Amino acid sequence: MAAVKACNILITGANRGLGLETVKQFLEDSSQKRHIFATCRDPDGPKSEALRELAKKHPSVITIIRLDADDPSSVKESAKKVGSLLGNNGLNLLVNNAAIVANGTIQTSSVEDMKNTFNTNVIGPLLVIKEYLPYLQAAAKASRIPGMSSNKAAVINISTLGGSMTRMPSMSPNSQCCLTALAGFNMLTVLAAEELKADEILCMALHPGWVKTELGGAKAPLEPKESVEGMLHVIGSLNEKQHGGFLDYTGETMPW
Amino acid sequence: MAAVKACNILITGANRGLGLETVKQFLEDSSQKRHIFATCRDPDGPKSEALRELAKKHPSVITIIRLDADDPSSVKESAKKVGSLLGNNGLNLLVNNAAIVANGTIQTSSVEDMKNTFNTNVIGPLLVIKEYLPYLQAAAKASRIPGMSSNKAAVINISTLGGSMTRMPSMSPNSQCCLTALAGFNMLTVLAAEELKADEILCMALHPGWVKTELGGAKAPLEPKESVEGMLHVIGSLNEKQHGGFLDYTGETMPW
Ligand SMILES: NC(=O)c1ccc[n+]([C@@H]2O[C@H](COP(=O)([O-])OP(=O)(O)OC[C@H]3O[C@@H](n4cnc5c(N)ncnc54)[C@H](OP(=O)(O)O)[C@@H]3O)[C@@H](O)[C@H]2O)c1
Ligand SMILES: NC(=O)c1ccc[n+]([C@@H]2O[C@H](COP(=O)([O-])OP(=O)(O)OC[C@H]3O[C@@H](n4cnc5c(N)ncnc54)[C@H](OP(=O)(O)O)[C@@H]3O)[C@@H](O)[C@H]2O)c1
Repeated sequence: MAAVKACNILITGANRGLGLETVKQFLEDSSQKRHIFATCRDPDGPKSEALRELAKKHPSVITIIRLDADDPSSVKESAKKVGSLLGNNGLNLLVNNAAIVANGTIQTSSVEDMKNTFNTNVIGPLLVIKEYLPYLQAAAKASRIPGMSSNKAAVINISTLGGSMTRMPSMSPNSQCCLTALAGFNMLTVLAAEELKADEILCMALHPGWVKTELGGAKAPLEPKESVEGMLHVIGSLNEKQHGGFLDYTGETMPW
Repeated sequence: MAAVKACNILITGANRGLGLETVKQFLEDSSQKRHIFATCRDPDGPKSEALRELAKKHPSVITIIRLDADDPSSVKESAKKVGSLLGNNGLNLLVNNAAIVANGTIQTSSVEDMKNTFNTNVIGPLLVIKEYLPYLQAAAKASRIPGMSSNKAAVINISTLGGSMTRMPSMSPNSQCCLTALAGFNMLTVLAAEELKADEILCMALHPGWVKTELGGAKAPLEPKESVEGMLHVIGSLNEKQHGGFLDYTGETMPW
């Protein structure tokens, strides 16, 4: 059961994998009245069918919005639309979940793969934060809760332990070049935390564990259900102490 | 005086700033017979005049080669040319020095600037390592020195303390988004070190200090001379203990 009390929530890459599971678990928790902006890059495509079904069943809770992390104008458009639907309470919780993984070592990785990975996994989330900042600020202002929390205003960057400088080499032997982008993504969390501090908007990175999704593969030990249950528990219990930090789905602190 | 004994050396961005100063200091040290491949993106342009003058005076020591870090085909071309000029002894020392800096916080940085920075500062050096690897391997094989050293075969990535996850927020308030690329560059050093270990090719990152160049600006406390003297001293004294590490121009260990 999610301990998250945020009212207005936006998730990127919400059409499958961990993003979709997150939407589902929010729906199961009826203790809280909330609205979920479930964004994906192709709302009408075959990969979004499960999300469309869900939205059909819960039309007052879910709004599907097109947001392609690779396309700055789509990020902007999405923010306009969400802004027009949000009340004065603003956006409480923004989950940067969309990402891609490209395989390749220094000797085998292609320039195109590296550029795409950086675009989707670093520039994309940065633009999302930038365009949604006014609504996060509105939520922080509207809240009467002191300090920082995910119920007030927060950015959660779903990241990977593989992006860590200190523990990395033993992991992910086939997606090394992708890790240069991941290191950039983790740096983005540190930088965003610095910029958002004055507005009392919490910002941190969360590692979901190694999970059975298209990205994680069939050999992963964790089911999406367990990973997302853990992450929602962590998100629900965050305060200013975790601002700018990096935790995993069990709440354990990760090295940068 | 440089303690570096490497015979065949390649430097990127050798036409001005720290790159040019490095070429100069190698020339001043006559204790060693060496060849310097001074690469730059526009050998015939006005920004390369000082380098051309130097090469005219020392035609047997300096060869100017076109290498644009943003252009994969130019990196490939340069490696072909250098390969045809190198003897069986291979390339002993590769200095990834070329870089750009773009200003901007999350709220102000442009997508174009971020892409360019990642291309020049992360993908560029990665391609350079990739294309020159056969010559570094040849040097490591040809050497009879055991272990690792810059005299045998080494990749030195000129990096910035600002790319560090742990010390960063207080620094460079106006080039924050550039730092996402820098974090990627430091990750590249860690990854390259892992891949090059088996070949006994040393790989590490070096912070030059804050230096008066076009990039460092007029307010920087260090002159290029002092920074490069320090860096060459550090490079000359490297061994396998510093492999995969991050030092500054005084030899002090930097946090990632
Ligand atoms: N699974 C793991 O073991 C694992 C481990 C560490 C970290 N993570 C992180 O967890 C997050 C979710 O991963 P996952 O396992 O759920 O992966 P997944 O099953 O492959 O799902 C990825 C999601 O990202 C979306 N996406 C990709 N590029 C996009 C773009 N340009 N614009 C918008 N959406 C885009 C995909 O949409 P489409 O359907 O349109 O492709 C999809 O919804 C990622 O940030 C990943 O790095 C996962
Ligand atoms: N100065 C400092 O305070 C400082 C501090 C920390 C780290 N660093 C690092 O030290 C290194 C050298 O910096 P610097 O101070 O000497 O900077 P600089 O004076 O601005 O020189 C930069 C050099 O990089 C070259 N370059 C830029 N883009 C290139 C590309 N696409 N292909 C090939 N060459 C390219 C430039 O060539 P053009 O003439 O063609 O533009 C120039 O030769 C950089 O890696 C920098 O990050 C410097």
